Amino acid sequence: MITLNVKKNIDPKVLLRHPWMTKALFDKPSESVNPNEIVEVRDAQNQFVSRGYANSLSLFYYRALTFDSREKLEDKFGFLSSRLYELFIQRLSLGYKKSFRLCFSENDFLPGLVIDRFLSEKNGKDYQVFVVQVTTAGINSYISDPLKIFKTLVEKMNQEKMIPIAWEQTILVLRNDIKIREKEGLPFGPAQILNNVDNLDLSVMPVSIDHWFLKSDMKIQSDLMGGQKTGFFLDQNYNLLRVAEVFTEYVKFFKPGKVRIMDICCHLGQWTAYLGLVLKQMGVEAEFVLVDISKDALANAKATMDGYGIQAQCQAIDVMDDKFTIDENAFDLIIVDPPAFAKSKEHIPAAKSAYQKLNLKAYKGIKKYGFVVSCSCSGAISLEDLKDSVNRAQIKAFRTSKIVAQGGHAPDHPHLVSFPEGFYLKMLMAQVTS
Amino acid sequence: MITLNVKKNIDPKVLLRHPWMTKALFDKPSESVNPNEIVEVRDAQNQFVSRGYANSLSLFYYRALTFDSREKLEDKFGFLSSRLYELFIQRLSLGYKKSFRLCFSENDFLPGLVIDRFLSEKNGKDYQVFVVQVTTAGINSYISDPLKIFKTLVEKMNQEKMIPIAWEQTILVLRNDIKIREKEGLPFGPAQILNNVDNLDLSVMPVSIDHWFLKSDMKIQSDLMGGQKTGFFLDQNYNLLRVAEVFTEYVKFFKPGKVRIMDICCHLGQWTAYLGLVLKQMGVEAEFVLVDISKDALANAKATMDGYGIQAQCQAIDVMDDKFTIDENAFDLIIVDPPAFAKSKEHIPAAKSAYQKLNLKAYKGIKKYGFVVSCSCSGAISLEDLKDSVNRAQIKAFRTSKIVAQGGHAPDHPHLVSFPEGFYLKMLMAQVTS
Repeated sequence: MITLNVKKNIDPKVLLRHPWMTKALFDKPSESVNPNEIVEVRDAQNQFVSRGYANSLSLFYYRALTFDSREKLEDKFGFLSSRLYELFIQRLSLGYKKSFRLCFSENDFLPGLVIDRFLSEKNGKDYQVFVVQVTTAGINSYISDPLKIFKTLVEKMNQEKMIPIAWEQTILVLRNDIKIREKEGLPFGPAQILNNVDNLDLSVMPVSIDHWFLKSDMKIQSDLMGGQKTGFFLDQNYNLLRVAEVFTEYVKFFKPGKVRIMDICCHLGQWTAYLGLVLKQMGVEAEFVLVDISKDALANAKATMDGYGIQAQCQAIDVMDDKFTIDENAFDLIIVDPPAFAKSKEHIPAAKSAYQKLNLKAYKGIKKYGFVVSCSCSGAISLEDLKDSVNRAQIKAFRTSKIVAQGGHAPDHPHLVSFPEGFYLKMLMAQVTS
Repeated sequence: MITLNVKKNIDPKVLLRHPWMTKALFDKPSESVNPNEIVEVRDAQNQFVSRGYANSLSLFYYRALTFDSREKLEDKFGFLSSRLYELFIQRLSLGYKKSFRLCFSENDFLPGLVIDRFLSEKNGKDYQVFVVQVTTAGINSYISDPLKIFKTLVEKMNQEKMIPIAWEQTILVLRNDIKIREKEGLPFGPAQILNNVDNLDLSVMPVSIDHWFLKSDMKIQSDLMGGQKTGFFLDQNYNLLRVAEVFTEYVKFFKPGKVRIMDICCHLGQWTAYLGLVLKQMGVEAEFVLVDISKDALANAKATMDGYGIQAQCQAIDVMDDKFTIDENAFDLIIVDPPAFAKSKEHIPAAKSAYQKLNLKAYKGIKKYGFVVSCSCSGAISLEDLKDSVNRAQIKAFRTSKIVAQGGHAPDHPHLVSFPEGFYLKMLMAQVTS
């Protein structure tokens, strides 16, 4: 085990369980540390701070796996197995039964590891798919045998009657198609399926979403092999509920003959599917306009909506293009949920302009008392940045609005009080009042 | 009408609909402006910015009432009447039917004016109570005849069948017991009742709270005459829902024989009443410990819980006192919802220590997988400040936790994208995982 001491006179805040540490913080950092090694960080007084892994090639030199001195890392398989078991219990205890994020990297004290668990069903049989993203060499050394890790996990969960799905109904997908892996010296390539069962086609897979609020089931056709990130964005689930909760009250009060909703950057259409199902249960007629640049995403979205009989008009267009405009005062609700415009700090000004431009179109298109839902999933864009962009948009559109709901991460995307950088998803629901 | 021009070379951001402007921003501010006057602010190029009122005695020299050049302020009664009517529509359109904040000062473009509307019932008859706080001389000039304003409003709402409550069932309370009124040259004194009907005792009044999530009604015994602020804190309603939603999933999963919940700084016990009712509907046995320094608040809380048959043990103690400790690993849920510890910026360090101290007690007392709910209603304390205090608390308590829900304002407490200072209420729900 390598021991690294934090320099004297370092701001004591860095010792408050932040999961990242740069090389500059350490007294005698090794220039070329092996990411497979276990590293223990101690403060200048040689007191335990954390254990984890280091990599001089990585954006952050050191990442912590535990802040508990009793937790050992030597038995890598044992450590990761018991961690994933704990995470499964935590998610189940928050009410998740179907599809959810099982592991959320630093926020679950496993930096470099993202696992989404999707539930699907075919011919009356349930399947679970674990989609795994390994982005650092450090965590890769803990998951050298993915099949063994997941088989052990599933069999334990199944034996303890926590989940009714056996290994024979389990599929493992390694999404190693992330560029950053190359920098870490990890192989980079297309998604790989381990333990495929029953020849399922994962590129057009209807995944079942948990919704406490929606009484019936929601299934979204997704591409778990080639779709963005893990194939489906689970992170907006909770915000869908928040928006639907308020919006249905608006519908009950104003009773518009037909509700009109625009879903900008709709991707697989989860906002539309959810709102469509909720409104259907209320017996309210609704018409959706879905807009996205990706024809593949729209094709999947269309399949989902057709399956539900949701009236959806799809437009394949670059929403940032000036050709994309919205009729004035035409919609009861407009969702603006674009991809991350700012990947890092230097992109903030351009990203803010882009958020402003897109929200300006939305603000023009909304009816009085209707809602604009403005999201940002850029970690670099703060809540204040997003508010500023939305403010400039409403001013330019000569509209006035009030935020009536503000959303963030769903419970299966926990975040740490010690890691504000981990809070990336912002949602503002504004009622346009004039 | 007075015209004030903003200085040249002022950061253009101040023209982005911020409701406050200091004297230093203006070119030739009058040293003693009459707060009854209508003021129009223009930029250095003499373009319209906003209209409102100014007061050189006030903390902020100028406060805006409108950013829309078409909106006139000359007919003060007409202006305020139509504004309050609009606000009523907005709140109803968000699903509120019973008690809600009707007017939220700057956030509703009426700085200096807070109005809570409470619904109550006695002998099968419904009553509404408007509790009004006027804190600035500027807004006071718009509401010179409160009876006329509210009678007109209620009669209009009633005539249009928006609310089924007539003026004969309406009570108006002026809570002029706010110190800051004196600085503005406004009379300061105990609460006044205008238009009391049926000799209701407003100091022990059960107010009905809207909850979309809770199927049955919730009534909290409140003191609308002498209780803090307007007598009942409506702002946590939405967060109660968020917490109950997650907590009930935990209860369903772990099925603890008896659920134990501590409600720190319980005030009138709304957290307890709500969770108590939800758990009762689930058929789950629960035991609550309510802690508050105010015996009056506890007496009201006890009355509410007894009425519902909720098992509540009340402790009158200063929670900051070292004598107040919590048994280790004893509770499934601990609510930490203290009063505003930081009234202004210079109180931030002391307030952060106080939040830390209180949360430390809570973190020690919670079971594994249980939840600590940490709130701050101090505008001066940022979300990051609160997270930092909670982080230091959990570290000192040797515990680890993850935020699974983050809350803020309820829809009846809207906030403006142009006014980040208006967002004062923060709620963090952390699951303690080790």
